[in-house]
Amino acid sequence: MSDNQRPRRARDLGIVVGALPTGRHNALTDVPGVRVGHTTIVDPPRLHTGVTAIVPDALGPDRRSLPCGLFVGNGFGKLVGATQVAELGALETPILLTATLSAFSAADALVTHVLASPGHEETRTLNPVVGETNDGRLSDIRARPIAESHVLAALDGAASGPPEEGCVGAGAGTMALGFKGGIGTSSRRVHGWTVGALVQSNFSGTLTVRGVPVRAAADTAPEPAGEPEGNSCMIVVATDAPLDARQLGRIARRAVFAMARVGSDFAGGSGDYALAFSTPGAPPSAGPEGVDEGCAVDGSVDERDLDPLFTATMDAVEEALLNSVLTATTTVGHRGTALAVPHDLVLRRLAAAGILPQPSAGAPAS
Amino acid sequence: MSDNQRPRRARDLGIVVGALPTGRHNALTDVPGVRVGHTTIVDPPRLHTGVTAIVPDALGPDRRSLPCGLFVGNGFGKLVGATQVAELGALETPILLTATLSAFSAADALVTHVLASPGHEETRTLNPVVGETNDGRLSDIRARPIAESHVLAALDGAASGPPEEGCVGAGAGTMALGFKGGIGTSSRRVHGWTVGALVQSNFSGTLTVRGVPVRAAADTAPEPAGEPEGNSCMIVVATDAPLDARQLGRIARRAVFAMARVGSDFAGGSGDYALAFSTPGAPPSAGPEGVDEGCAVDGSVDERDLDPLFTATMDAVEEALLNSVLTATTTVGHRGTALAVPHDLVLRRLAAAGILPQPSAGAPAS
Amino acid sequence: MSDNQRPRRARDLGIVVGALPTGRHNALTDVPGVRVGHTTIVDPPRLHTGVTAIVPDALGPDRRSLPCGLFVGNGFGKLVGATQVAELGALETPILLTATLSAFSAADALVTHVLASPGHEETRTLNPVVGETNDGRLSDIRARPIAESHVLAALDGAASGPPEEGCVGAGAGTMALGFKGGIGTSSRRVHGWTVGALVQSNFSGTLTVRGVPVRAAADTAPEPAGEPEGNSCMIVVATDAPLDARQLGRIARRAVFAMARVGSDFAGGSGDYALAFSTPGAPPSAGPEGVDEGCAVDGSVDERDLDPLFTATMDAVEEALLNSVLTATTTVGHRGTALAVPHDLVLRRLAAAGILPQPSAGAPAS
Amino acid sequence: MSDNQRPRRARDLGIVVGALPTGRHNALTDVPGVRVGHTTIVDPPRLHTGVTAIVPDALGPDRRSLPCGLFVGNGFGKLVGATQVAELGALETPILLTATLSAFSAADALVTHVLASPGHEETRTLNPVVGETNDGRLSDIRARPIAESHVLAALDGAASGPPEEGCVGAGAGTMALGFKGGIGTSSRRVHGWTVGALVQSNFSGTLTVRGVPVRAAADTAPEPAGEPEGNSCMIVVATDAPLDARQLGRIARRAVFAMARVGSDFAGGSGDYALAFSTPGAPPSAGPEGVDEGCAVDGSVDERDLDPLFTATMDAVEEALLNSVLTATTTVGHRGTALAVPHDLVLRRLAAAGILPQPSAGAPAS
Repeated sequence: MSDNQRPRRARDLGIVVGALPTGRHNALTDVPGVRVGHTTIVDPPRLHTGVTAIVPDALGPDRRSLPCGLFVGNGFGKLVGATQVAELGALETPILLTATLSAFSAADALVTHVLASPGHEETRTLNPVVGETNDGRLSDIRARPIAESHVLAALDGAASGPPEEGCVGAGAGTMALGFKGGIGTSSRRVHGWTVGALVQSNFSGTLTVRGVPVRAAADTAPEPAGEPEGNSCMIVVATDAPLDARQLGRIARRAVFAMARVGSDFAGGSGDYALAFSTPGAPPSAGPEGVDEGCAVDGSVDERDLDPLFTATMDAVEEALLNSVLTATTTVGHRGTALAVPHDLVLRRLAAAGILPQPSAGAPAS
Repeated sequence: MSDNQRPRRARDLGIVVGALPTGRHNALTDVPGVRVGHTTIVDPPRLHTGVTAIVPDALGPDRRSLPCGLFVGNGFGKLVGATQVAELGALETPILLTATLSAFSAADALVTHVLASPGHEETRTLNPVVGETNDGRLSDIRARPIAESHVLAALDGAASGPPEEGCVGAGAGTMALGFKGGIGTSSRRVHGWTVGALVQSNFSGTLTVRGVPVRAAADTAPEPAGEPEGNSCMIVVATDAPLDARQLGRIARRAVFAMARVGSDFAGGSGDYALAFSTPGAPPSAGPEGVDEGCAVDGSVDERDLDPLFTATMDAVEEALLNSVLTATTTVGHRGTALAVPHDLVLRRLAAAGILPQPSAGAPAS
Repeated sequence: MSDNQRPRRARDLGIVVGALPTGRHNALTDVPGVRVGHTTIVDPPRLHTGVTAIVPDALGPDRRSLPCGLFVGNGFGKLVGATQVAELGALETPILLTATLSAFSAADALVTHVLASPGHEETRTLNPVVGETNDGRLSDIRARPIAESHVLAALDGAASGPPEEGCVGAGAGTMALGFKGGIGTSSRRVHGWTVGALVQSNFSGTLTVRGVPVRAAADTAPEPAGEPEGNSCMIVVATDAPLDARQLGRIARRAVFAMARVGSDFAGGSGDYALAFSTPGAPPSAGPEGVDEGCAVDGSVDERDLDPLFTATMDAVEEALLNSVLTATTTVGHRGTALAVPHDLVLRRLAAAGILPQPSAGAPAS
Repeated sequence: MSDNQRPRRARDLGIVVGALPTGRHNALTDVPGVRVGHTTIVDPPRLHTGVTAIVPDALGPDRRSLPCGLFVGNGFGKLVGATQVAELGALETPILLTATLSAFSAADALVTHVLASPGHEETRTLNPVVGETNDGRLSDIRARPIAESHVLAALDGAASGPPEEGCVGAGAGTMALGFKGGIGTSSRRVHGWTVGALVQSNFSGTLTVRGVPVRAAADTAPEPAGEPEGNSCMIVVATDAPLDARQLGRIARRAVFAMARVGSDFAGGSGDYALAFSTPGAPPSAGPEGVDEGCAVDGSVDERDLDPLFTATMDAVEEALLNSVLTATTTVGHRGTALAVPHDLVLRRLAAAGILPQPSAGAPAS
């Protein structure tokens, strides 16, 4: 079976994380009004990069910000927009993910996009939020091939259906946990709310699926001595639960903690960040330019009700991380090759651990 | 085999975490000059509490502080001394662990202890560091039975050999991961340095041993509906690697991340903290009282060499957490009972997962 | 005129800070439901210390916490309760101020007080908040004379009228800006809300009154070479504006910034902290013990409306700091003497700067 | 006397801040190896903007980072590079200052500049640091006129002599304290070390010179109702004192505190940031790309010796802020006019307060 045809996601392989139900698409886009778009730039072997856009519909002429929290698990990264998110607890723009050295031109393009949006005719300050990870092993990151048009295409193309995963958008050139990484997403339903996660996986460690380590054969290991295979993980969490910024910061912290479940070694060179935003709750604000500081948001979720949301977050992030690796395909890149994790290897390891039944002949392995 | 006689630690059961070698005792005390003492207060069923003291010998008349970092994973806790540790990056006193409502009298007793120490005749400011978790289910925490004498006994009795684990000191009344928790410790050697960890485990989740979940039988589950079984985890990491405070903060972060590996659910009510200190590096300081702000410490470990120390930290914390549960014994307490994790259950689950061989008749199970 | 009889406060001397009106008493207690109590311990020359209690009536059986923010301007201090205030954005107890080495026994006494309060029969976790500054020059701080009874007396005696200022409570032995410091308070009214501040002043710098530096004559300077005169400033801000914890953190930051206005040199040995809490807004919470994490509070003040509250905060803190010095009286203490700032010196300096009219004969100078 | 010819700096007017001596140029460039360059873009009345570059010579092929600390006084700003500076305590690039909406393209241009520098042929990760304030009142900020060539010109033109001040570079279009703001700089010498500060002033409040408020006549007030006059202050502090990142963070905090001395009202819409870096101390680092995390720096300044450096910092920042306003000239801009502060007004006010002698006829007023 070719790489292109293979089953894509954890659940397609019978791998289920946690007990909570997923949303309809098991994706970030299950949160009402959250869209995702990708622009993928591939010119093998030199370029494997791109842009991923997360677009909350709630941001618009009538609502200039949403409550947002941030956790920096390891700040070796270039997240654009961090300090204002922390100060005001507010997200003012769509979130972009891209390659490290392109984060700044992408932020500039995001400004262009928002300034041209209806209701922004008088906007003179704006806090674009752009996360990044380093795809410099599979892609010629110094070339900085991401142009304004790529960013605008990702924003304009953002859709509400199931997002593409794996080697798309900002995940085209990333590597994770000994294999090819990429974009992954998942969601959970709890107490009538939806929690969705989308990740750009690009970090080192040992891929761990439901507790079971899955290592590539030694002769296929992707990492030359002395060079880390991956550098950073960006995690975006969205929810329609009416949380305030402080509570969303607590959500964001658990999102990074969940990286441990899939085997992250939390290497010092990996910039690991989580942003969490809430789609309801932000009242319209339309004050004089320059003093619209964001939102005075009502968090109407009692603190004691956060635990189920924490569980939903950790489970969704864990499954999104698995999806990012399971759906990625082998990539021959600029300065090396990243192998897709063989699905049959995963299934055999899980069967050996008694978690899945032994795969029969003709089983849904790749 | 009775609870008292059963094998105590993960390695005694054949459970090994990671690839790095341990120190001599596989304990925090493997870090040269770090001693541990316990005072255990048990008066069943009402009282199961105590004090654990971590004493760095390097603190003394000639050296008033050691480099120290702190990470607050979830700040629902009462750690005494946090802001000064963060500001000055310095530890000025031994570290105490105890029960929540006794943290303040314990801090007061620690002040008494240090003021009476040689070289402190003129000391008029001091930042005692006391961590705590809530043992209010197995012990009558409102009684606050911990007296100054108990604190002084733990400090004075601190020894450099292998520390006791399980239901001792600050771990006498704690619960973790569905079972009785307590004190656990472990260490790793890397690049000629030692990293040691000691934990006071008291948090919810599903006990996970090398990726394998281990749940108590439903009819023995310790938790009545609506009440969390545990509340917080205190982690202390020590090393003789010459790290500065910023680097130790990065170590501390990974210590909390490692909680995910044993199945923590990072519940909102759990105050999860890690303190990490370094025993070399702090130059003598003997200035006028009041302006001895701590240390201007040389971190001579290059940032790129931190990764092995991060791995050592996460492995030592993971194994210390396992030890804390594996060595604890069933405790009938003030408002409930916490069952020791059955060793044979753990071994059977690990055997079923293919991690350990099937236990034979006569195997070292409890 | 004797020290005891002299006019006490800035406004009594004609010194007005800012343009906003004050509350009725120009005091923290102008915020409805906020009471202040002092226990003063004086046994000259050895002891000049005490406890000050700030008691929000809103805390009680029906309301377990209030929204609260914290800013640590310089963390060389021992504030008890910091990490939980930061995590949950919540104040669970009255706030105590006292002497450094007594902060922990005071916190323990505060626990005693709250556990004995109506509605706390089942309380098993509690985050007492205690600030401190170091009065070790005028008082024998190593003696730790503050007993539980002193703390309980301050709490029980807390009243809603104009609080005493100067050498009372936690201010009995403090020094500030070259003179005797102490407790000061002030308030402002803005947009129908009240902002009140209370300070424990104990820091170095040059007393600056409405921009005019006021220095003691060289031969009366209180500071022996090599020893700082003061160590720390604790600031408490209360408001009935319905702010959330993040907004209160912004308020707290401005409270510390206002120290610059009275001449603080922000010395490294001064632990400078501000706590800000809001009296409305916290919904009743009465969940199962241990999971009552505080408040999910609605901040209903729009972010753009914070600026007047920031101004009110800075003005109230500035005037409270001035009041703390102006109302304090000369104190012959354990290891030195602190002189009261001569009112006529202040008035002459302000007159020379054209801010106040030249004091006539018989003017209200001390 | 025309605006162009008027005396430029505080000291030219007889205004001296503090008691410490200045460096040779009383400028940031007094710190050895620190250069400053400006590109000014003026096309009246529509454009008044630009770029200012602070270039530490120590960054180069042999040294990839310098110890650096950051303080966010009010995070309503878009500082690029914040989280990595905080994590690693390291500055990897020159620092740029510019206009809000141009910060991202400027960061992109800075990446271009560094990637093209000797020794960076293999660089694949980089953390550009760009501060900004909002000049949208005097300049058409939405036009984003700052091109890569402008950034490169500022970097390439950076020189070690006395930098231009006032309406140059990133200060061309800023407003501060009721008047035209801009770029200002100052330095202090203490204990053989130099501390230099450079500011981009753009914030509201009442100009306060040595404690004396200086207000424009009501009929010349620049601010239409409802619109703030300024938005943010960026402060850069450099020193050759060998401080580590934690200590530099303490320096940075005092830099923001010093804004209070010149009358900042710390409005919520003002993004107030300070960066402080140290030019010695960083050892060469030349590891494999991607793991060069910065510096393991020895801070060899004892903590107790920081106080003089704190004083130097606050005095240099205060005087730099004064210089930024005193040297700026009246600017008729895109949506309003900002008046230069009249020097004779300042001198008259200081004379009235007894701080300066009465200006005689023919005195050096503007």
